[in-house]
Amino acid sequence: MAATPSIVTLSPKVQKLKSILEDFVENECIPAEKIFEEQLGNAKKGTNGRFERYPPIIDELRAKAKSLGLFNMFLPNHYPGYPTPGLSNLEYGVLCEILGRSTTLAPLACNCNAPDTGTMEVLVKYGTDAQKKQWLDRMLRGEIHSAFLMTEPNQASSDATNISTRIEKDGKGNYVINGRKWWITNGNNPRTELYILVGKTAPDHPEKHRQQSIVLIPRHTPGITIVRNLTVFVNDAPIGHCEILLENVVVPVENIVLGEGRGFEVLQGRLGPGRIHHAMRAIGQAERALDKLVLEATNPVKRPFGQLKADFQKVQWDIATSRMEIDQARLLVFLAADMIDKKGAKGALREIAMAKVIVPNVLQRVIDRAVQVHGAAGVSGDHELAEMFANARTLRFVDGPDEVHTQQIAKLELRRGQKLHKAFDGYAARTKVLEQGKKL
Amino acid sequence: MAATPSIVTLSPKVQKLKSILEDFVENECIPAEKIFEEQLGNAKKGTNGRFERYPPIIDELRAKAKSLGLFNMFLPNHYPGYPTPGLSNLEYGVLCEILGRSTTLAPLACNCNAPDTGTMEVLVKYGTDAQKKQWLDRMLRGEIHSAFLMTEPNQASSDATNISTRIEKDGKGNYVINGRKWWITNGNNPRTELYILVGKTAPDHPEKHRQQSIVLIPRHTPGITIVRNLTVFVNDAPIGHCEILLENVVVPVENIVLGEGRGFEVLQGRLGPGRIHHAMRAIGQAERALDKLVLEATNPVKRPFGQLKADFQKVQWDIATSRMEIDQARLLVFLAADMIDKKGAKGALREIAMAKVIVPNVLQRVIDRAVQVHGAAGVSGDHELAEMFANARTLRFVDGPDEVHTQQIAKLELRRGQKLHKAFDGYAARTKVLEQGKKL
Amino acid sequence: MAATPSIVTLSPKVQKLKSILEDFVENECIPAEKIFEEQLGNAKKGTNGRFERYPPIIDELRAKAKSLGLFNMFLPNHYPGYPTPGLSNLEYGVLCEILGRSTTLAPLACNCNAPDTGTMEVLVKYGTDAQKKQWLDRMLRGEIHSAFLMTEPNQASSDATNISTRIEKDGKGNYVINGRKWWITNGNNPRTELYILVGKTAPDHPEKHRQQSIVLIPRHTPGITIVRNLTVFVNDAPIGHCEILLENVVVPVENIVLGEGRGFEVLQGRLGPGRIHHAMRAIGQAERALDKLVLEATNPVKRPFGQLKADFQKVQWDIATSRMEIDQARLLVFLAADMIDKKGAKGALREIAMAKVIVPNVLQRVIDRAVQVHGAAGVSGDHELAEMFANARTLRFVDGPDEVHTQQIAKLELRRGQKLHKAFDGYAARTKVLEQGKKL
Amino acid sequence: MAATPSIVTLSPKVQKLKSILEDFVENECIPAEKIFEEQLGNAKKGTNGRFERYPPIIDELRAKAKSLGLFNMFLPNHYPGYPTPGLSNLEYGVLCEILGRSTTLAPLACNCNAPDTGTMEVLVKYGTDAQKKQWLDRMLRGEIHSAFLMTEPNQASSDATNISTRIEKDGKGNYVINGRKWWITNGNNPRTELYILVGKTAPDHPEKHRQQSIVLIPRHTPGITIVRNLTVFVNDAPIGHCEILLENVVVPVENIVLGEGRGFEVLQGRLGPGRIHHAMRAIGQAERALDKLVLEATNPVKRPFGQLKADFQKVQWDIATSRMEIDQARLLVFLAADMIDKKGAKGALREIAMAKVIVPNVLQRVIDRAVQVHGAAGVSGDHELAEMFANARTLRFVDGPDEVHTQQIAKLELRRGQKLHKAFDGYAARTKVLEQGKKL
Repeated sequence: MAATPSIVTLSPKVQKLKSILEDFVENECIPAEKIFEEQLGNAKKGTNGRFERYPPIIDELRAKAKSLGLFNMFLPNHYPGYPTPGLSNLEYGVLCEILGRSTTLAPLACNCNAPDTGTMEVLVKYGTDAQKKQWLDRMLRGEIHSAFLMTEPNQASSDATNISTRIEKDGKGNYVINGRKWWITNGNNPRTELYILVGKTAPDHPEKHRQQSIVLIPRHTPGITIVRNLTVFVNDAPIGHCEILLENVVVPVENIVLGEGRGFEVLQGRLGPGRIHHAMRAIGQAERALDKLVLEATNPVKRPFGQLKADFQKVQWDIATSRMEIDQARLLVFLAADMIDKKGAKGALREIAMAKVIVPNVLQRVIDRAVQVHGAAGVSGDHELAEMFANARTLRFVDGPDEVHTQQIAKLELRRGQKLHKAFDGYAARTKVLEQGKKL
Repeated sequence: MAATPSIVTLSPKVQKLKSILEDFVENECIPAEKIFEEQLGNAKKGTNGRFERYPPIIDELRAKAKSLGLFNMFLPNHYPGYPTPGLSNLEYGVLCEILGRSTTLAPLACNCNAPDTGTMEVLVKYGTDAQKKQWLDRMLRGEIHSAFLMTEPNQASSDATNISTRIEKDGKGNYVINGRKWWITNGNNPRTELYILVGKTAPDHPEKHRQQSIVLIPRHTPGITIVRNLTVFVNDAPIGHCEILLENVVVPVENIVLGEGRGFEVLQGRLGPGRIHHAMRAIGQAERALDKLVLEATNPVKRPFGQLKADFQKVQWDIATSRMEIDQARLLVFLAADMIDKKGAKGALREIAMAKVIVPNVLQRVIDRAVQVHGAAGVSGDHELAEMFANARTLRFVDGPDEVHTQQIAKLELRRGQKLHKAFDGYAARTKVLEQGKKL
Repeated sequence: MAATPSIVTLSPKVQKLKSILEDFVENECIPAEKIFEEQLGNAKKGTNGRFERYPPIIDELRAKAKSLGLFNMFLPNHYPGYPTPGLSNLEYGVLCEILGRSTTLAPLACNCNAPDTGTMEVLVKYGTDAQKKQWLDRMLRGEIHSAFLMTEPNQASSDATNISTRIEKDGKGNYVINGRKWWITNGNNPRTELYILVGKTAPDHPEKHRQQSIVLIPRHTPGITIVRNLTVFVNDAPIGHCEILLENVVVPVENIVLGEGRGFEVLQGRLGPGRIHHAMRAIGQAERALDKLVLEATNPVKRPFGQLKADFQKVQWDIATSRMEIDQARLLVFLAADMIDKKGAKGALREIAMAKVIVPNVLQRVIDRAVQVHGAAGVSGDHELAEMFANARTLRFVDGPDEVHTQQIAKLELRRGQKLHKAFDGYAARTKVLEQGKKL
Repeated sequence: MAATPSIVTLSPKVQKLKSILEDFVENECIPAEKIFEEQLGNAKKGTNGRFERYPPIIDELRAKAKSLGLFNMFLPNHYPGYPTPGLSNLEYGVLCEILGRSTTLAPLACNCNAPDTGTMEVLVKYGTDAQKKQWLDRMLRGEIHSAFLMTEPNQASSDATNISTRIEKDGKGNYVINGRKWWITNGNNPRTELYILVGKTAPDHPEKHRQQSIVLIPRHTPGITIVRNLTVFVNDAPIGHCEILLENVVVPVENIVLGEGRGFEVLQGRLGPGRIHHAMRAIGQAERALDKLVLEATNPVKRPFGQLKADFQKVQWDIATSRMEIDQARLLVFLAADMIDKKGAKGALREIAMAKVIVPNVLQRVIDRAVQVHGAAGVSGDHELAEMFANARTLRFVDGPDEVHTQQIAKLELRRGQKLHKAFDGYAARTKVLEQGKKL
């Protein structure tokens, strides 16, 4: 595992936390991964089997993480009154990478897993006291999970204005919700108690960004049907991703978040610092993949043509290239985190977008190289690489595809156009002055 | 589907066969894929469930293919006396691409699936009359399948001299076989009747390539244990890949192929033209992936930011790049096939190696782009892309990893060194002559 | 030099011509390159010095090429009555690659150099008898050169509708031409006698493609000023590229080609088969660059860390990758040539576009690798690689940038959309039929 | 120009210096580049013409830089007693990027140009008082230049043990030097007064790294012949690169640096912090190239197919990709600089190697994209891009080719192998413990 880059300075408090966390991830989470898999059991592909049981190892790990002060690290220090170490985004970035080494278990163990982090941020920022009491407190204690119901089937989901789910008043103090959602992480998790849903209260509102609202729905409200669990290469219960049908689901109007027509505002706030959590964790995943690559390259048993794999220059280039890509990606993630700390999410738009494009692509490439060095074993269930690959590939869509963020970066860069034309015209003008013999 | 490149001229016979095959693949095989999946059923991951039953749709397809004259097309025309259309490798390349469009079913339907094709080639070339009668005839009729037991766990399997399975004489007219094999395609297929095994009869022979022999083992010989089925991202019964333990497996000495110590010779012969069958099929897979990409790009329902995906220049570049890569890869495959026809497998070493490196990489990239354009749906079970991706990734190891073939190409190219030095010295010498005023 | 791919069959006539040409290029043209450079002399950068003299070696080479029957090979066999071997595009493709090995001298020696080939095609196709007599005959004899005046400064020249040069009637039987052109190859060549100019006769014509006309201008007509020679990394006299100012240049109306408003038509015809001549030659250049790479890799004097450069696997991968890229690019060029032969330039749009994108990029990459293996010497004047690199980089703009052709490929591919939707809907419908138990 | 990344904190002193420097580079150096080019004049290619005169603009700029406190910024703060702002490597990295925007003039203006910086470091560290007085003081005042004579023709110069130049004692208190050197930057600069030469005093010493020594040679010592100036695409006087012949060149034994056989030691010291100066400047170059790209993309006159180039998504991706690559490369350079500050050059081996591989490649790619967006003008002398490209391409060899540094990174990474095996064995052991029911 690469050390934190020297240009990032950690306070003694964070250094200590980091050391505790490293110990927890290396000695508890990673070794527990196999236990987790065994406890999940082998359910039929595409059925709910693997979702019927909440593996006890998670509760054990959560208890331990809480006792070690590792719970809720994601909550930044500007939310007073909540049980969190109070970290800056940069500090959390450093720790989140360590969580990412055991991406299946460590974030969950530390109550820092998506989409719960986003839900908690929404409730902290916009929740009423009643909403907080009902949901947030239990979530911060790690008792329940939540799901975020936004994406809909057959929509170009990278554009959020396309949502078709309806949230309608029934005139009796309730909202009635109808729609279909999919890719709902945690939707079928047996511990999930809260659905946080994006729909349209005013589909005809002339301002496209005022049509949406967000409401809180208790998981077991009548009218909710889990249609099926989706697979991503493999299925990954209990968190998983499912398709959910909502038919005349009724919740009291108090369950609105922030107010009608303010869905976009909440969405922005929800994604504040959380925007780069995936990227932070992905760095840890990439390091683990590179570890696997180096392990295989130096495996004394594997000697194609009489040499260690590490003796082949091609393998050395795979290693060096991965190291260079990861180290650069990490710096970018830390830069984005630091920009959020210093200028807020809006001031860090460019850095966030860059991290979102670069990191999942780097992760996919590093894992792909690790797979290649392993040979066929690398795509089998014998190594975690195949599963890591599936996650990495998916990451290139999570929070919007590469394409959306790349476009965003270009847009920001192109804004410099006018200033640049002025500067370069200035160079030419100054050259003319100098040509006429003017002294510097 | 792209037409056969104009520089490849087909005889009327092959054109007709091609037309029949296209019809069969488009109207029977591809539509039957879902039936096949349903008939397989949902067995527990990693268990044998999906291998217990041979889906009836395969038998239906095989009967139809046979009646259409599409059986055993892979067998080149230099094997007289067998029921095959008698195609050149180039001609088969054209047809094999079409098989590749439905890579799950079409090759199987036409008795052109690996590893059975390799087994049949071995028996045709090297089999005794008794061996042919016992195995080959039934295989050519499509009654049974076979497995090829070469790869071993914990070995650098790209180097075949590392095999540790032992084949020992017991002094009573038998061989006794002990060893462990994995990645055995068809090993657990209920219709498999023949194992064709690579092991060492003379592990201490001073010539490293004389240590190996190949023996034929009836599938249900005592001492054979299916240890487990391996998964490649997903499992893929009934063909699948399994790990097999052989403990004191006894076969009569007549089951040797070609003779003791001639295993390498058989291996070379086995891989003759078959070396590029995977590449041929992969072109068809790539075309299907590109079809899916174009379909999604022109899907009128998907309109991110109000535009068809096809209206984004990034998507257009993904399409154009895929087209350019596929068309070049196809030409390379056809060149390799033609070289095998004209100069034999040995004379086509370079072209074969190039096809093996290029095609699987192109396939992986094209599928990856198709996945990206689909968004998260692309990695789900809703589209065949995730499964295609898994196959494509695996293809970069099948018949040796990229690295081995790339090295081979470099080696052949470097042989030109001496001739080049002479040529360039010649240029300089001739320049000197010209500088001295000599007329051309 | 790689042999012609086996799937391309050459007639005995072409095989013989090929053998003569190889001999001529290897033993006369390549060795003469240094003579040519010496005869050009060292003129001041950016000045006309190097353009003042037509190096005598060219005349010698042209005489020899003519005597060997190698003159005007580019002219396809559908132009009867002209001194040409009468080759198909595919056949010329094979020979043009050989010309490309000595890209500076061999095309010029064989009267197959741009832009003269285009000019001759225009005159053959559209010239009046008078025009042919005045210009074409002398060009076919290799006595004079021509320039093609199309590109204009400060225009997005990949879009030909932007031309601003005016061609106006003076009412006295003349056209008066005013405008500024640049990147005019041969514009300043002392042997150039003909300018063939694209301008607008009807700038306000409602049909954008009817505004342009093409006129023939004798090189030394009053009103023509060579503003300067442009450099491309280095300058490359005597062919070079220059900027030309046309001020009230007067030519008789008889000098129009095909008729007023038919400029686009002529442009299309001009570029018929010639569209891929650059690509054909570039394959030869790429082979020469790879030769240089292999030479340096096997240079016994260069032994970093005690090994030949060829012993480093990274260098081997550079070689193998180059070989794979070149061989695929060659096949693509030959495919495009063959498609032109069989379906005309319009029917080969896709193949032409692919060749235009792929080949210059491959060439640039192969040269870049060769440069890298040479170390700093590779970018010096000691090797031809730096100059080759400059040409290769330029080739990515010649006849339109990569971007235009890539877009074209995507457009053609997207046309398949509708058909694909129908086919895939058909699969689903057929699956339903099969699910209902219908026999195949 | 991108701002310094927020994770790098600058002291008020450095912030002020940065502001002064930016003003100087933007308003004096960049506008003066054209003056410089005019003053150099148009000498014959490959001849000495352009080297005969030292352009007066340099003296003007140097005087101004000195008056602004911008002289000798490269000298780190651990050399007391010398006129330098006393910057850390990280601080200099920030400023050096700004110098890199005008790479032709700004480093020279601020006496921070290679190879003079290396020479000054050698003299500061290892020079005797006499040597310092004779050379160093004048160099620090900017009165003279120096050349570093290491590379030899026909050697694999990435391996320094291959040097063949001999330094022999004559028994009369002198060294006699014989050899041939090339790629000698500043070798022919009219202001160069000092050659610092690497040769062998003990070619047969059993320890390969004790054979070399370094001696100081006054430029105009008899026996020194400038054989020729080398071109890199173009020549670049007055700094340039030349080939030098040394025949019986005699210098007093006092001119040895540090002592006989200690050449390698000096070489290591020379390259201490200076190892990444090229990379630092290259970031500035890359920013300037990206500026040019954005300028052209937003040029209102260039409208292919009726749109700004910036409206094409392909161009937007070129811009965004360049921004992502540059920002990551900058962070890597700053990380390397910071590691040198904190752990010395030895402790920063990995980071230095990564910066050396990544930055020149990024620079080449960014310039290549800028060229492409400009069309043919991009490779002409009308834009600085062609010259920038030539420099960028060369940078991939300076201080060793990509290959050497990549190998170094792999080597360092592979050292983790043993530790990793232990860690992963530990995971497995811990899993076993957990499987036996042990509580966390």
